[in-house]
Order: sequence, then structure tokens, then C-alpha cells
Amino acid sequence: MKNKNTPIASLGEFGLIEHLTQNNQTIHKETIQSIGDDAAVLNYASNKSLLVTTDLLAEGIHFNLVYVPLIHLGYKAVAVNLSDIAAMNGIPKQITVSIAVSSKFSVESLEEIYEGIYVACKKYNIDLIGGDTSNSMTGLFISITAIGEANATDIVYRHGAQLNDLICVSGNLGASYMGLQLLEREYRLFKDLPDVQPDFSGKEYLLERQLKPEPRFDVLDILKKENVKPTAMMDISDGLSSELMHICKQSNKGCKIYSHKIPIDPVTAITAEDFNMAPETAALNGGEDYELLFTVPLHELDKIIKIPQISVIGKIISPDEGMHLVTQDGKEIPLNAQGWNAFKPNS
Amino acid sequence: MKNKNTPIASLGEFGLIEHLTQNNQTIHKETIQSIGDDAAVLNYASNKSLLVTTDLLAEGIHFNLVYVPLIHLGYKAVAVNLSDIAAMNGIPKQITVSIAVSSKFSVESLEEIYEGIYVACKKYNIDLIGGDTSNSMTGLFISITAIGEANATDIVYRHGAQLNDLICVSGNLGASYMGLQLLEREYRLFKDLPDVQPDFSGKEYLLERQLKPEPRFDVLDILKKENVKPTAMMDISDGLSSELMHICKQSNKGCKIYSHKIPIDPVTAITAEDFNMAPETAALNGGEDYELLFTVPLHELDKIIKIPQISVIGKIISPDEGMHLVTQDGKEIPLNAQGWNAFKPNS
Repeated sequence: MKNKNTPIASLGEFGLIEHLTQNNQTIHKETIQSIGDDAAVLNYASNKSLLVTTDLLAEGIHFNLVYVPLIHLGYKAVAVNLSDIAAMNGIPKQITVSIAVSSKFSVESLEEIYEGIYVACKKYNIDLIGGDTSNSMTGLFISITAIGEANATDIVYRHGAQLNDLICVSGNLGASYMGLQLLEREYRLFKDLPDVQPDFSGKEYLLERQLKPEPRFDVLDILKKENVKPTAMMDISDGLSSELMHICKQSNKGCKIYSHKIPIDPVTAITAEDFNMAPETAALNGGEDYELLFTVPLHELDKIIKIPQISVIGKIISPDEGMHLVTQDGKEIPLNAQGWNAFKPNS
Repeated sequence: MKNKNTPIASLGEFGLIEHLTQNNQTIHKETIQSIGDDAAVLNYASNKSLLVTTDLLAEGIHFNLVYVPLIHLGYKAVAVNLSDIAAMNGIPKQITVSIAVSSKFSVESLEEIYEGIYVACKKYNIDLIGGDTSNSMTGLFISITAIGEANATDIVYRHGAQLNDLICVSGNLGASYMGLQLLEREYRLFKDLPDVQPDFSGKEYLLERQLKPEPRFDVLDILKKENVKPTAMMDISDGLSSELMHICKQSNKGCKIYSHKIPIDPVTAITAEDFNMAPETAALNGGEDYELLFTVPLHELDKIIKIPQISVIGKIISPDEGMHLVTQDGKEIPLNAQGWNAFKPNS
């Protein structure tokens, strides 16, 4: 924690932007003009398609500043946008950042958010090319737009899943959701007993998945190296169930996935049980894993099966067969989209 | 006013986006994939540079929903972003829209905002290609990113002003600020005497300038037809004084402008006097006019002088001569940037 508490008003709007972006440097040849004019100027190569995505994070809805460090918030706000570019099989290059904060925030608190933004930009080779910083009556809002590129033939849409395709996910699921449950539980305890220090020992992995998610460009690289192009792809921000239903609906297909094939980390499983929750529920409906959900043709099984970062969890079937989860005892349960919803009452 | 008051939660996040964008159609060949995937896909021609700009509007800071109709708010949120593309001498093509609203907003209120967004998109040939709609704890936030194109050689930056260039503005200044003063005055009256109906007769022009600003692509077209390319350009969102200081600082130049040359509409002048304010103050420091401020080489005077939509207000001088306003009685006053500031205490 920094000690100083400089009021934002003391710098003014332009002074603040200048202050926060004074060390900003761009790396991509495509970035001709960055922050400092009415608009950024980009020159992309003629054979590239552009990818554009945007995400808004609102205090009290998407994050709780009591337990989310500002530097992680900045990092995560970038990471979730990059994950959308990854989900198109693209390479992110630029972001714009708009932030609204109430006057209770200090210049130093904005510096921490920007520090996280810059760390993510550096890690993923992103140019910060513009933005807007404004006051809000209450609360903190971060809106980021990411721009990336891809060869038109490399882009993977949601609507391309084919009959008999394998359904695959990267990494493991449900960890981020269980991390959130831990943080929420400690927050409730803290409100009642402020002197008790939270104990997260052994659960650090879950907190990291919740607070510092990483877009899976590494998995895209592996697929490229194996010369496997997914037929459809999404990132899992709202839970496996909801995302898979998107792919099926947009591809006009059905699906069957097997609960025992869903990759779940042991710490996630143990923690879910602590919370009297089936680990599969966290994976199916939890969200914020930012893993990749994708489909590949059946004949790619030999290549996919040997990749440790990827699990095959089911297959694409015809739309009239529906969308099902097969439980370990062989029951078929229709999938439903109980994914995370920013408008859910009491969410 | 529509009568229905459908809770947003009844549609859910995906249902809401689908509902609001169900009639969305794109017109540009560059827009390959619009709303409905992880990111939009754009294919721009190889000889074009891309322009990217973003603006965030926050309730209570940038607008007061007591007197700003939601349809106008949607329109204005688009218009101010397009104005930034105009200020680069570009052509806007796509926008993304992120909105956060508290649960007190209804589906119908969001429909009204989107109606304004669609009207602006239709008028200026813009494709709505993506966005995010989320809950907020309190208040309404709209963050828009606009993407446009220009030939690299056509782009006009802020830093290009040359010695002896003419300083020009389009349209007239201060009207939007006086419109805001009128709305604020009636709002204060309304709070004390809710039965008194506001009377804006004769002042409609000022309200229109405040509530429904228009980017000046028409002025860019005239300049193109006359074969005049500005050396530096900005749009006037924060007041003439502040914007001109940006151009001078980024061009490393000074300036001298003449108060009696600043174009001010008679209704603006009369209203400013009603408020015991010099009309020039509204023009210099008021902001939100979204007119274009630009510099052209002196030898273009013959072409510029005959264009009724453009006023020559001064000239670019060397930086050591400073930045001055010359009053009607010949006094030179240093410019200062009292422009609108989202972080100004009590702004």
C-alpha cells in the first residue's frame, strides 16, 4: 500500500491522463499514433483481419475492492479482453482504457490500477493507445476495448462446430469460482470479526485463478504447432454450460459432455466439497475461468489426446438430440445456462 | 414516454443484448462479423489507416437524467465519439457500446438509449459491432469506442500547426454551454416549484446544441472540395481556450486570437447576458460545442474566407510570443485552460 493520498482533482483531467501515461511506450509498428490526439492511428497490414472486443467491469458487480487489489483489477480488466481475442484465434495488439472513479479515489489508487494494466500490456505485448479518465458519482468502472489481428483464414467463430466434432477445454474449470467463494466467505467473516486474519494457505491457486486470470495464448500456440484448427471456439467467462450452449445454438448443433471428463483441479474439488457443492457445478456454472472451449474434427483426436493442457469432454451431436451432460452413473441431464449473469437479482 | 417498466433482470444479460440488438444491421463491407461472437471482425483496405477513439459518459458528471432524454443521451454518446474521428479528418465506420445501469432502469429505458444510438448510427453510416451491457450499483455509464478510416496522408494531427497559419473554427461557439445553463436553471426552479413548466421558447437552438450535438463532417467535406487540408485540428469538447492551447503546445507554437472574431450566435449572446456572463467566456471555456478548431496555411485565406461555415479567429505565432486573446479594446490576455474538467471540484 502506498501512503500518499493525492486528490485526483489536484491534477485535473488532462494532468491525470498525462501523469498516468507518462511512461507509456508502444512496441507495435502498426501503432502510428498512441495517446495524445483526438484518436489513435493504426496501420495494419493488408492481409490481416482486425478483431475488436470490449468489456466493462463495474465495482460491486464484477469486483469488490475490499478483497481485490487494485493492481490485480487493472491486470484482470486487460486479461479478460485479451481472452476474447484469443477466443477468435487472434493476436491482440492494442487496447484503449476508460476509467470512471469517484472522488474518494486518490491519484495513487489510479496509479495502482494502471500499474496492473501496464504489467498485463508488457506480458502480452500490448500497446495502450488511448482512453478516457473521468469522475463518477460513486464507484469504479473500467471499460477496455482490445484490438487484435488474425489472418482471415485463421479466425475461429462460434458457429463452426460440425457433427461428431470433439468438444475440448483447456486447463481446468471451476477454480476461479471457488476462489471467489473463498474471498466472499472471508469477507463475511471479516465484517463480523475484523481482527481475524484470513487464512488461504493451500488455496493460493484458487485465489490466483480468480484475481489474476490469464488468456490461453499458450494453448493456441500448441494447436498451431500441431496444425489443428478448431472449428468453433469461445473463452469460458460465464461457465462451461452457458458457453457450450452458445456454440451449439450458433452452430445449430447439439452436444453431449461427460461430467467425469470435465477437468477439475484437486484444490477446486476439495474446496467445493467444503462448500457442500458438487465440483462439476463450479465448473459448469461458475465462470471466470478464461479457459478456451473449442471443437475439433474427430480425426484430430490423435493429436489432441497427447496435449496435457487440453481435455476432450464430449462431442457434437445433431441439434434434435439436444444438449446434455452425462453424469458418472449414466444419467443424461439437459444443460442449462445458469452462467454468471450481471443482471441476476442479488448477483 | 413508454409506459411499460420491464425489469432488466427478467431478460438476463444475454437476453437483454439480444433484445437490444435484434434489428441491428451492418452496412459496411469492412464489417465481416458484428455482435454475436467473442470479438467483431473487420477487414479494412490495405491503403487505409485506422482511427480509434473512446469516450466515457457518467451520470451526474456528464449528464443529468432529470433533463436529458435517454434517446438524446444515446445519440450524443455516439456523436461525441464521431466528432473525435472528424477531428482527425477521418470517416467513422464502426462503434462498440458498453453500458452499465443500475437495476432501477427498465428494459424500456435501455431501449430508448439504444434508439438514440441507432438514429446516430443511421445518420452517420455507422455499424454497431459490439458491446457489453452490465449492471451497476448506482447510476448509468456509457462507454463508446469508435473506429474509422483515413488515407494516411489525409490525417490531421494536433501537432502540425505552422508559423503564420490561420486559426479557424467551424460554426459558432458557446451555444451548448448556454443550453446547459438554461437546463440547470430550470432544474433548480423545478426542484423548488415542481408545478412550474419550463419555458425555453426562443432558446430551442441552445438546447439542441447541448442535447444533440453534431460532428462537423459537412465542414470536412467543404474543405476537401476546396482542396484545403488543415495543418492541425481538434474538436472543441472542452472549450476553445483549452483546445487551442493543446494545439499550440503539441505544435510548439504560440497563438493570438481576437475576441470579436469568435463566432457567437445571437441567442447565445443574449442568453449569456441574461446570466451576467460575457458571451466570449461561454465560447472560450464552455465546451461541448463539438465544432472543429483547425489551422490552415496563410495562403489558403482566399478559399477559407468565402466559406460561411468557417470563421478565421486569429493566427499562429512563435512559441516565445505566448498564447493570447486580444480583446475588442486591444488588450492582450493570456489564454488559460479553464475548460470543462470532469474532476473539477463541484463540477
